[in-house]
Amino acid sequence: MMIDLNADLGEGFGIWRLGEDEALLELVTSANIACGFHAGDPLTIRRTCAAAIDRGVAIGAQVSYRDLAGFGRREMDVDPEELCAEVLYQLGAVDGIARAMGGRVSYVKPHGALYNRICRDPEQAGAVVAAVADYGDLPLLTLPGSAVHEIAAGEGVTTVVEAFADRAYTAAGTLLSRRSPGAVLHDPGTVAARAVRMVTEGVVEAVDGSLVPVEARSICVHGDTPGAVLMARAVRDGLVDAGVPLRSFT
Amino acid sequence: MMIDLNADLGEGFGIWRLGEDEALLELVTSANIACGFHAGDPLTIRRTCAAAIDRGVAIGAQVSYRDLAGFGRREMDVDPEELCAEVLYQLGAVDGIARAMGGRVSYVKPHGALYNRICRDPEQAGAVVAAVADYGDLPLLTLPGSAVHEIAAGEGVTTVVEAFADRAYTAAGTLLSRRSPGAVLHDPGTVAARAVRMVTEGVVEAVDGSLVPVEARSICVHGDTPGAVLMARAVRDGLVDAGVPLRSFT
Amino acid sequence: MMIDLNADLGEGFGIWRLGEDEALLELVTSANIACGFHAGDPLTIRRTCAAAIDRGVAIGAQVSYRDLAGFGRREMDVDPEELCAEVLYQLGAVDGIARAMGGRVSYVKPHGALYNRICRDPEQAGAVVAAVADYGDLPLLTLPGSAVHEIAAGEGVTTVVEAFADRAYTAAGTLLSRRSPGAVLHDPGTVAARAVRMVTEGVVEAVDGSLVPVEARSICVHGDTPGAVLMARAVRDGLVDAGVPLRSFT
Amino acid sequence: MMIDLNADLGEGFGIWRLGEDEALLELVTSANIACGFHAGDPLTIRRTCAAAIDRGVAIGAQVSYRDLAGFGRREMDVDPEELCAEVLYQLGAVDGIARAMGGRVSYVKPHGALYNRICRDPEQAGAVVAAVADYGDLPLLTLPGSAVHEIAAGEGVTTVVEAFADRAYTAAGTLLSRRSPGAVLHDPGTVAARAVRMVTEGVVEAVDGSLVPVEARSICVHGDTPGAVLMARAVRDGLVDAGVPLRSFT
Repeated sequence: MMIDLNADLGEGFGIWRLGEDEALLELVTSANIACGFHAGDPLTIRRTCAAAIDRGVAIGAQVSYRDLAGFGRREMDVDPEELCAEVLYQLGAVDGIARAMGGRVSYVKPHGALYNRICRDPEQAGAVVAAVADYGDLPLLTLPGSAVHEIAAGEGVTTVVEAFADRAYTAAGTLLSRRSPGAVLHDPGTVAARAVRMVTEGVVEAVDGSLVPVEARSICVHGDTPGAVLMARAVRDGLVDAGVPLRSFT
Repeated sequence: MMIDLNADLGEGFGIWRLGEDEALLELVTSANIACGFHAGDPLTIRRTCAAAIDRGVAIGAQVSYRDLAGFGRREMDVDPEELCAEVLYQLGAVDGIARAMGGRVSYVKPHGALYNRICRDPEQAGAVVAAVADYGDLPLLTLPGSAVHEIAAGEGVTTVVEAFADRAYTAAGTLLSRRSPGAVLHDPGTVAARAVRMVTEGVVEAVDGSLVPVEARSICVHGDTPGAVLMARAVRDGLVDAGVPLRSFT
Repeated sequence: MMIDLNADLGEGFGIWRLGEDEALLELVTSANIACGFHAGDPLTIRRTCAAAIDRGVAIGAQVSYRDLAGFGRREMDVDPEELCAEVLYQLGAVDGIARAMGGRVSYVKPHGALYNRICRDPEQAGAVVAAVADYGDLPLLTLPGSAVHEIAAGEGVTTVVEAFADRAYTAAGTLLSRRSPGAVLHDPGTVAARAVRMVTEGVVEAVDGSLVPVEARSICVHGDTPGAVLMARAVRDGLVDAGVPLRSFT
Repeated sequence: MMIDLNADLGEGFGIWRLGEDEALLELVTSANIACGFHAGDPLTIRRTCAAAIDRGVAIGAQVSYRDLAGFGRREMDVDPEELCAEVLYQLGAVDGIARAMGGRVSYVKPHGALYNRICRDPEQAGAVVAAVADYGDLPLLTLPGSAVHEIAAGEGVTTVVEAFADRAYTAAGTLLSRRSPGAVLHDPGTVAARAVRMVTEGVVEAVDGSLVPVEARSICVHGDTPGAVLMARAVRDGLVDAGVPLRSFT
């Protein structure tokens, strides 16, 4: 029994900053680093890699659609062959920087609209999986039960499953849509308790009060909202207090 | 006695094409592949890498300023720390794609305004050299006698020198400015003969008729002008007919 | 009875060119000028506006999704409020340049994936119509019977309908999908004859041989394919020979 | 005797924000709105225009080099013809949005590296002046005594001069370079007192203690530094207390 905590980091661009990277790097065990397509200029990538390496935090490539103006949050009908090349490009870019700093990319986590799309679109999921397979031996951090999960299994690409302690789950064990009221939980204590239960009991309380099984080798904490650091710290402390070792899956 | 022929390739972007890549790949021994900052979307990079690997042509990363609108031909006052990270990013991106195709980036050639700038600006030259040194053991394809050449030597980065058979040289052995009349030669026979003389005798006829020494392990041929392929073929045929082996420097 | 011929123009970007603008400008009566989001840097816009004004060709703003890498051909889930602002931005930019040259934008034609999307998506169609309404008194060049047509009517925005002489029509009077065999016609004589019949008889022969009514105040000719100019000239000559006056709808 | 206060606004992009626009709009009389080339997506432009119109703040087009990654702070060797078209494009885009909201662009203030470059480079200054002249009857907000000032006068383009109350001046009346110690003043009381003296006496105390004449129809206040709003409020209050009417120059 051990758990990884992952967060999105390095999501500034040029003069613009986003999130509290320094504080989060003290709390997480895996850093999903923006690769330049939705955020992340090369200098920000370099600094974020250096900071992650300093703290022994694993580096993941947070690959995205090419969409700075929309922060990668808008679905795009990208041709699979092109998407595959775009994922390779981003992966190589961040890995090149990480290796120059003495580290390396050790997993891939798609970002935003691409993350959501490949949970249900086998064509784009296949493109992402093909890129990861072509690049080499990296695990893909995903949502259990999704299209990308299944396709990765078929291609021999390792997947690592994550859960969201601050999101409401349906009785079917899926995430409640963000558009539904109560989809996002804001109380650090509640969220921390859910994280502990996910890890130690393998269940989460769904919106109807039932307990549903949830599988998680990593828990995602958010970094770009007010109170994000407090929330991440509560989750971390809760897990540590419950005796759960925090360890990267890589 | 042997020589490399290098050309800029993969300089399209999205729907737009530039140059005759297919024809040039049959003629050159080294392909300077655009890395996405002045040209080169990921799919174009991937296809160009695949075509180069197929033909046994060496792959170079043609790193540039971030300037799609200006095709990397406008000097920019980029901060050295940022420039270094940008070079690493581009290098890693193309190398990642090349490795996924079974090849690898085996040298670096800066593009356009960056190429010119680092011939005389020690600060930006130092940034490029630092990136190449941090990335690993790659040679840098440059103009002999330039600032970047000297700095690379100081940092233990290998340099490979190139000459331009279709450019006029001054009696001092430097390139005549493109703004001067007669700076670019257009007759394939003349250019081919100059290439042969550069390689076999180590000299070029300068604009005043004097013979000046020229050092070259590679000759650059251009791909984006009308008649570029004819010119490249004339240079190649001239060298082959003169018994000069064409071989990549990598 | 009169007809307008419209074509996409100014679709280069920076060093890259696309299509034969000079030749097409001699043939069409309306120029859909790319506004910088899928193609069209400011200098290209300026030169294309100047050339259109010189020849008395009407200038239209060919507004698009923000997608240079995909040439605006990929559908994007853009928020309507943002899309509305993006359309205004593009419209103002091209109109500003056109006015500085002594002309003005006199209509709006959405490009590529945006054109297709607003034929069926009322939300994005509403955003485009709102931008055109806010900007002032400009007609919108569209496909008859589409969502955007209907919404424009409701908002008091004038629409002008266009037809495609080189596309196959179904018996229901809609365009046959590009993925179907025979969707695009390539013989200039056939296409010219269809154009004449569309204008003089108001009908087109559908794929099943039936005659279906087609409404058109403008006919779209393409400029970015081999043979595009020959095709456009055949259509123009056919119409002129049939005694149909060619006149912009503005 | 009256004075304008101007500040840079709308300098976010997509998800990223910069500066405290809401607070500054309550203090200034002129808003230099980013036009999309160094910052400013269309929706941000629209919202900033709307907020400025609501408060009766004059709208200026803060035109820039095309450089999102460098926030327009890096000098670029842009060809004058291209720069002229880029300025027109930006001007038209923001003016189009402003007019759709019931306002209009009423002046032009170049941003960052372009502002500095055209103070000394007649070629780029000429390109900016030509764009403003071609667009119509707008004043250009500049530094007195600069190249652009002189060229504008020759072309019949009105200039409005600004001063910087928070910057040190040399005994020659020019701004002390930002690289020199003490170049930027941080005490709100001191800066406010300097602003009052600039306006009421037409002088500023230089770094050597001498009083040098300074001409100003507008004073620039900064918005993107910590304490920016406090500083701007101190300047405003100081001027109001001294009985100086705050009024836009447009």
